[in-house]
Amino acid sequence: MATQAAFAVRFPQLARPSRGQGQPAPAPARVAVRGVGRAAAAAARGVRCRAGGLIEPDGGRLVELVAPEEGGRRAALRREAAALPHRVRLGRVDTEWLHVLSEGWASPLRGFMRETEFLQALHFNAVRGADGSLVNMSVPIVLALDDAQRRAIQASAATSVALVDAHDRPVAVLRDIEIYKHNKEERIARTWGTTARGLPYVEEAITNAGDWLIGGDLEVIEPIKYNDGLDQYRLSPAQLREEFARRNADAVFAFQLRNPVHNGHALLMTDTRRRLLEMGYKNPVLLLHPLGGFTKADDVPLSVRMKQHEKVLEEGVLNPESTVVAIFPSPMHYAGPTEVQWHAKARINAGANFYIVGRDPAGMGHPTEKRDLYDADHGKKVLSMAPGLERLNILPFKVAAYDTKHNKMNFFDPSRKEDFLFISGTKMRSLAKNRESPPDGFMCPGGWKVLVEYYDSLAPPEGSSKLREAVAA
Amino acid sequence: MATQAAFAVRFPQLARPSRGQGQPAPAPARVAVRGVGRAAAAAARGVRCRAGGLIEPDGGRLVELVAPEEGGRRAALRREAAALPHRVRLGRVDTEWLHVLSEGWASPLRGFMRETEFLQALHFNAVRGADGSLVNMSVPIVLALDDAQRRAIQASAATSVALVDAHDRPVAVLRDIEIYKHNKEERIARTWGTTARGLPYVEEAITNAGDWLIGGDLEVIEPIKYNDGLDQYRLSPAQLREEFARRNADAVFAFQLRNPVHNGHALLMTDTRRRLLEMGYKNPVLLLHPLGGFTKADDVPLSVRMKQHEKVLEEGVLNPESTVVAIFPSPMHYAGPTEVQWHAKARINAGANFYIVGRDPAGMGHPTEKRDLYDADHGKKVLSMAPGLERLNILPFKVAAYDTKHNKMNFFDPSRKEDFLFISGTKMRSLAKNRESPPDGFMCPGGWKVLVEYYDSLAPPEGSSKLREAVAA
Repeated sequence: MATQAAFAVRFPQLARPSRGQGQPAPAPARVAVRGVGRAAAAAARGVRCRAGGLIEPDGGRLVELVAPEEGGRRAALRREAAALPHRVRLGRVDTEWLHVLSEGWASPLRGFMRETEFLQALHFNAVRGADGSLVNMSVPIVLALDDAQRRAIQASAATSVALVDAHDRPVAVLRDIEIYKHNKEERIARTWGTTARGLPYVEEAITNAGDWLIGGDLEVIEPIKYNDGLDQYRLSPAQLREEFARRNADAVFAFQLRNPVHNGHALLMTDTRRRLLEMGYKNPVLLLHPLGGFTKADDVPLSVRMKQHEKVLEEGVLNPESTVVAIFPSPMHYAGPTEVQWHAKARINAGANFYIVGRDPAGMGHPTEKRDLYDADHGKKVLSMAPGLERLNILPFKVAAYDTKHNKMNFFDPSRKEDFLFISGTKMRSLAKNRESPPDGFMCPGGWKVLVEYYDSLAPPEGSSKLREAVAA
Repeated sequence: MATQAAFAVRFPQLARPSRGQGQPAPAPARVAVRGVGRAAAAAARGVRCRAGGLIEPDGGRLVELVAPEEGGRRAALRREAAALPHRVRLGRVDTEWLHVLSEGWASPLRGFMRETEFLQALHFNAVRGADGSLVNMSVPIVLALDDAQRRAIQASAATSVALVDAHDRPVAVLRDIEIYKHNKEERIARTWGTTARGLPYVEEAITNAGDWLIGGDLEVIEPIKYNDGLDQYRLSPAQLREEFARRNADAVFAFQLRNPVHNGHALLMTDTRRRLLEMGYKNPVLLLHPLGGFTKADDVPLSVRMKQHEKVLEEGVLNPESTVVAIFPSPMHYAGPTEVQWHAKARINAGANFYIVGRDPAGMGHPTEKRDLYDADHGKKVLSMAPGLERLNILPFKVAAYDTKHNKMNFFDPSRKEDFLFISGTKMRSLAKNRESPPDGFMCPGGWKVLVEYYDSLAPPEGSSKLREAVAA
C-alpha cells in the first residue's frame, strides 16, 4: 500500500507554487455568486465575491443562504416564517451553525444535514457532491427536534418550518424538510471516538437535545449578528475572499486558534510567510482566524482574545499589511482529528489554500482518564490524508518554545534542548491567572496585560503554592 | 446538496449492463497475477486468475501473499522465520485475518495495517491507493502486541518478525514493520458507533489484546488450512475468479450470510438472477458465500450451516449450474453499516459486481439496551454511498416472508400484509431448537433436518412454554 508514501508526498507540493499561483494574481474579476434551487433568490445578490487567484470553494461555488437586502425578499420571508405553523427554536450552538451554514463555510451544504449527509459525515468524514466527487465534511451539522415537535410536524405533513431565536423571532425558513432519528450514542462515538461523559460539546448541545434531527434547505432572513462589539470581525467567506483579492494575495495561509496568541504563534506565522515567499509566491496573506463560537468554560472568552489579538497587531508583532484578523463563527467540538478537518475545510471556502496544523489540533484531555483524548500526531496525519482536502496544502506546525539563551520565542532546536522552555496554553493561563509575568518576549506587553486584566475580573490571585504547581506542571 | 440524488441514482445502473458486460464474456485470457515489492516472489506464480469479463480487483491487481510452491521459496521462508528472534503468536481471529490478507480479499492491503491505513479505515472507511484513488476499507485489519513484545522488538531495532501459530510453528514473516499505539476505546467507538460492553468481536479479539499494533508486509509460508472437512469450500478470490471465468459468467452476484439459508433467501437469489437476465446479462452466476470466521456463540456453527447449504443445492432449491457455494474466511464484527462495506468490498476482489444487501446487514441487538444496535436501513444507505464502492452494483434485498395464502415463501405484498408471516433468524433457531416444524415450504426438508440435528446434539428440547414465547416473539 502506498498510503504512507501518499502522506509523505503531500508536503513536497510546497516546493513550488501550484498551477499559476506563483504569478501575481490577475486583476480580480468580479464574479456574481448565484445559488441554485429554491434558495436562489437569497444568493443571487450580484457582486459579492471576487475570484482573483483564490482556491475554488468546495462544490465550485460559494453557498450563501441569506436573503438579499434589496427586492423585498427579507420582508416576504419574514411574513412567510411568521405564518408557518411549526417553529423550531434555536439554541446558542444551533444559531452558530445557522450562521456557519448561511455564509457558506460548509459549502456545498445548503442547510442542516439530511440523513444521507449525516451518515456520510459520520462514516466517511466526506459527502459526495452533485458531480460524484467527495467534499470533506467531518462533523455533523444538524438540528435536533424533540418527539412532540416531530409528531406535530409529521402529523401535519408540513414541508417547511420556521426557525426562531430565543425570543421567538423568526430567523430562517427550513424547506423540503426531512426528519430522522438522532442516535446520540452513535453520533458521539463516531465523532469523538469515545462516549465518555464530560465532552464539552456533547454536554452543551447533544445530551439534552431531542431524539430526532431535522434537515432541509435553509433560507435565512438576514445576516446573523451578535451585537457584542465584535461583529466587525465576523467576515463571511465572501467578504474574506473579497479582501484577499483586494490585497492581490496569491496565497492565503490560515491559522486557527482558540487560545490567546503569543510570540511563538507569531514566529510561526511570520516564518510561514517567509517560506511562502521563498517558494515564489509574491504576496502571501495570513488569515489569523480565532474561533468565535462555543468553547469550554475554562477557555479564554472570545472578547478577551480579540482584544489581545488587537494588541498583537498594534504592537507590530504581526504585520497588518499581510494579516487579516477575523472571527471563525463555528462552535468548537474538541473532536481532535475529526474536527481539524472541519477547521481546514471551512477555510478553503474562505479562500485559504494553505493551512497551518499543530500538535494535537482541536484536542483536549480525556474527560475521565489521565491522558490526552487523541494522539498528538493523529490530527496532522488524518488531515493530510482526508478525502476532499487534496487541494489544500497542509503546513505542519514547527514547534516553538521559549529560548532562554536568546530570551525570545524560537523554533525548538533538539541539539540544545536544555535551553528551551515550553509554555503550554494551560501554563500560560496559570501564569496570567496568578499575575506572574511570563519570560521576556513570550507575549507582547499589551497582549499580556489584556489577559491579566481578564483574570483579575474573575477572581483574586490564587495562592503562590498553586502557582508553583502550575509552572512546574 | 446532491447526496440524496446520488443515492437514488445508484440503482438505475441496473437498468442495463454496464460497459461491455452485457455481451457474452470473451474467451477468458490467462493472466499472470504478479505482486509488487518485497513479497513479489510470493505472488509471481504465473497462471492463477483469468480476467474474463470480471470486475477488476481493488487496486487493479489481486494481492496474493502466499509463497509459491515451486522454487523452494516456502522452505527458505520457513528457515528465515525460524531464525528470526521475535515471534508473534496468532490467535484464532488473527489467523483468520492472516488468511483473508494472504488471498487478497483485502486487496490492495499487503499485510496487517500500518498506522496510516488504520487511521484511514477508522476515519474514512477507505484508504488511498498508490494512484491517489480511494479504495474501500471499513474495518481495521490489525495485529496486536503487548508491551513487553513491543519493547523487545523496538530495543532490537528488528525490521521483521515471525508470525507463529498456537503450537509456535512459523506461519508467516511480517516485514518492514511499524509499531503504533492500539487505542482500543477509539477503535471500538469509531468501528461500532458504541463502546457498550458485550460486543462479541470486541470481547473475543480486542479487550484482552495488547496495547500496541504491529503492521507490515506479509509473506505467508503456505496456504491457510483448517482441516475441518470444509477446506474444499474455502476458495480464494483467485480460485473464484477462475471458476466464474470457466463458467463464462458475465455477471456475478454475491450473497453474504451467516445464518442458515431458507427458501426466502433462495427466492431472492433466484429472483435476482431473473432480473439480471432481464437486464440483458446472458449468464449471471450466484456466489453464495457464507461467512466462515469467528461468529458469536448463539449463531449456528459453520459446519452445520455448510451441511445445510449442501442440502439446499442437492434438493434443487438453488440451481448448481449457476451457483458457486464457497466460504468467506473473514471473522464477523457485527458492526452493521461499517462492516457491510467490508463484506461488499471483499467480494469485488473475488469477482462479484453485484451485491445483495438486506435489512440491518451485519447488525445485532444492542448489547446493553433493548433495541437494535443499528437502524435497519443504515447499512443499505451507507453501502450505496461508500467511497471506493462506486463500481459495485448494490441490489437492495426485497423482503420475503411466508405467504400463508400460497403456502410458500414469497415477496412481501403490503396490500395483503395479513397473509404474511415473518420468520426471523432468531425465530427460526427457536423452532429448530424445539424440534417444531416450520410452515411447509419455509426450508427444504433436508436443510431443516440438519438444523434440528444440530440442536439435538446440544441439549434436549426446551419446554413448550419457552417455545410459545419464542414463536410469539
